[in-house]
Amino acid sequence: MSAQAAQQMGLRVIVLDSDPNCPGAQVTPFRVKMDWNSDIGAAELAQLASSITLENEWVSPSNLLLAKQLGSTVIPEPHTLSIIGDKFRQRTAFAERGLPSPRFCAISSWDDLYKAAENWGGKVVLKSRRGGYDGYGVKIVHLPINDKDLPLSEPDEWYAEEFVPFDRELAVIVGKNSSGETAIYPVVESRQTTDGHRCDVVIAPAPNVDTELTRLVQDICLSAVDAVEGIGLFGVELFSRNGEIIINEIAPRPHNSGHYTMDGCRTSQFEQHIRMVRNLPPGPTHLIAPVVVMANLLAPRHGQINLEKSVSDAYRICPNIHLHWYGKSVLREGRKMGHLNLLGDDLDDTLSLVLAARDAFWRGVP
Amino acid sequence: MSAQAAQQMGLRVIVLDSDPNCPGAQVTPFRVKMDWNSDIGAAELAQLASSITLENEWVSPSNLLLAKQLGSTVIPEPHTLSIIGDKFRQRTAFAERGLPSPRFCAISSWDDLYKAAENWGGKVVLKSRRGGYDGYGVKIVHLPINDKDLPLSEPDEWYAEEFVPFDRELAVIVGKNSSGETAIYPVVESRQTTDGHRCDVVIAPAPNVDTELTRLVQDICLSAVDAVEGIGLFGVELFSRNGEIIINEIAPRPHNSGHYTMDGCRTSQFEQHIRMVRNLPPGPTHLIAPVVVMANLLAPRHGQINLEKSVSDAYRICPNIHLHWYGKSVLREGRKMGHLNLLGDDLDDTLSLVLAARDAFWRGVP
Repeated sequence: MSAQAAQQMGLRVIVLDSDPNCPGAQVTPFRVKMDWNSDIGAAELAQLASSITLENEWVSPSNLLLAKQLGSTVIPEPHTLSIIGDKFRQRTAFAERGLPSPRFCAISSWDDLYKAAENWGGKVVLKSRRGGYDGYGVKIVHLPINDKDLPLSEPDEWYAEEFVPFDRELAVIVGKNSSGETAIYPVVESRQTTDGHRCDVVIAPAPNVDTELTRLVQDICLSAVDAVEGIGLFGVELFSRNGEIIINEIAPRPHNSGHYTMDGCRTSQFEQHIRMVRNLPPGPTHLIAPVVVMANLLAPRHGQINLEKSVSDAYRICPNIHLHWYGKSVLREGRKMGHLNLLGDDLDDTLSLVLAARDAFWRGVP
Repeated sequence: MSAQAAQQMGLRVIVLDSDPNCPGAQVTPFRVKMDWNSDIGAAELAQLASSITLENEWVSPSNLLLAKQLGSTVIPEPHTLSIIGDKFRQRTAFAERGLPSPRFCAISSWDDLYKAAENWGGKVVLKSRRGGYDGYGVKIVHLPINDKDLPLSEPDEWYAEEFVPFDRELAVIVGKNSSGETAIYPVVESRQTTDGHRCDVVIAPAPNVDTELTRLVQDICLSAVDAVEGIGLFGVELFSRNGEIIINEIAPRPHNSGHYTMDGCRTSQFEQHIRMVRNLPPGPTHLIAPVVVMANLLAPRHGQINLEKSVSDAYRICPNIHLHWYGKSVLREGRKMGHLNLLGDDLDDTLSLVLAARDAFWRGVP
């Protein structure tokens, strides 16, 4: 989706990926056929591209640094990726900025975990420092701790966070370009699947967030970008409990919680992403309807679907939806395959309509 | 732009064109490398694609018929292309429907032209039946007619129309799917370049068009689509003089006068185009701001530009613009290279801002 936004602005897009069926390779004829995280791939791309950006935060900072040394503008900066890529460093950066954070500590032996659990009420969140997402790499550990509750990997690959009960998750998309100009999107609510691990629905604006709280949350998010010395586009996730806010984490790229912007804001997060990468001024970020709801199309099972029928069924239930399908080649249970956006005037109506359309997408029209 | 809309909805897009640098070939890796108007190209495409549509109306109806016979859904229908491709037949179809039209007649010898000029006040518009666009294939002829005023080609390649003075040009985008569902966009004003031949700026909604006139114009446009037995997406152009309306012509594809919809309407004409081609229900067509202005980026000269600088200069003047660049490889004076959209509350402000941004695009920031 960033590639398409770049193309609309006249940029030629080259995708670094060895997979000819990856979503990016379906929207441009220009591809470097190497692993997206290989150093020779990064070097080859740097020969061809004046600007390099990424769609996931697991690209190795050293490969990005190599591309930068070879003369490409790389955004987000390798340095930012180093901070974000290690969740303990990310958490430390937020705390050093004074952002509202849970208590947390590094773990050099499992004894550190026991101590943290004792100090924090008997319950600790154990988080993988690297590579976690959508609930992977997160364990909740209770006292008394059994050895079988502990991961098999080394203690120092993890860190501990205080367990913070929360009512809901909020999120904000923030853009910042090299000139220091910023774009800040509305505060939205991100509702998770019942297993709690994947974004299911995003509601913009977040219900029951007044002007004062909006400003507070947006300030935290701008500071979070500064804390990681961020340039580019970022998705910031936060927890909220009775209006009290804690920062969760930051992603250095367009984010699932910002997909609603594609049809719901004056400037989509993808156009904004490209503007930030190219050091262009931010576009307007406001909503174009009182309510915008995004519903993820998470694959309900492995296997195939009849996409033509599914698309048609969804539109028949609600012609006002905008359907986005990412062109991933394989359905895998829980995988994000696409999303639906719907604009409306009333939250309940809009939410139930988009969910009905999603139901029709996967299960057909009754 | 239609290709990108199709991809967002999960469709794989194959472009039929021999030119590897054509805009379509820049946004998909799938291309049939043959002339877009060859029969073997059409046959090859029909083997690969379940649906076929077009981006210009000069594709031969017989090639489209061939693709249809080979099993592809072809929209617009070859039959519609036959009517539209011959402007005399198109004009006849409108007149038979009772749509407000200028007087017109076929020409089998130049004598017919003299007679028409005498009957219609000494002035006649001579129009090429095939292939004219943007002022090409249109001649205004006055009495007394000199032989050197006449085209070199045969008289029956032309037809004559009464000269109708008009204040301004209006336009409407209309969609219709195979199930008969229609989408109708706002009435817009299309302002031409000073030579009168190319669309320069489009203003949505058209100023000083009240509800009653809007309904009248939209009814004419829906009838015009019916007159050519149209399925797909159409741009309808009309002339207006003191509120009196005359239909000019219809294009069976997304139209320059509808580019404002990309950022200015709930559903862009390109998404609507794909919905119509796939027989999906129409999306909402209303404007998302009180005023939307589209300014074409017509090349001021032959040669090259520094696109990066031009884009940056335009955004610096007005960050709220949305810039679209088509990726055509060569600048040619007067060629449509892209466009700018700007949303606003006040027409004068919005128009002057977008023109300032356009000026900066071509000439730099003062």
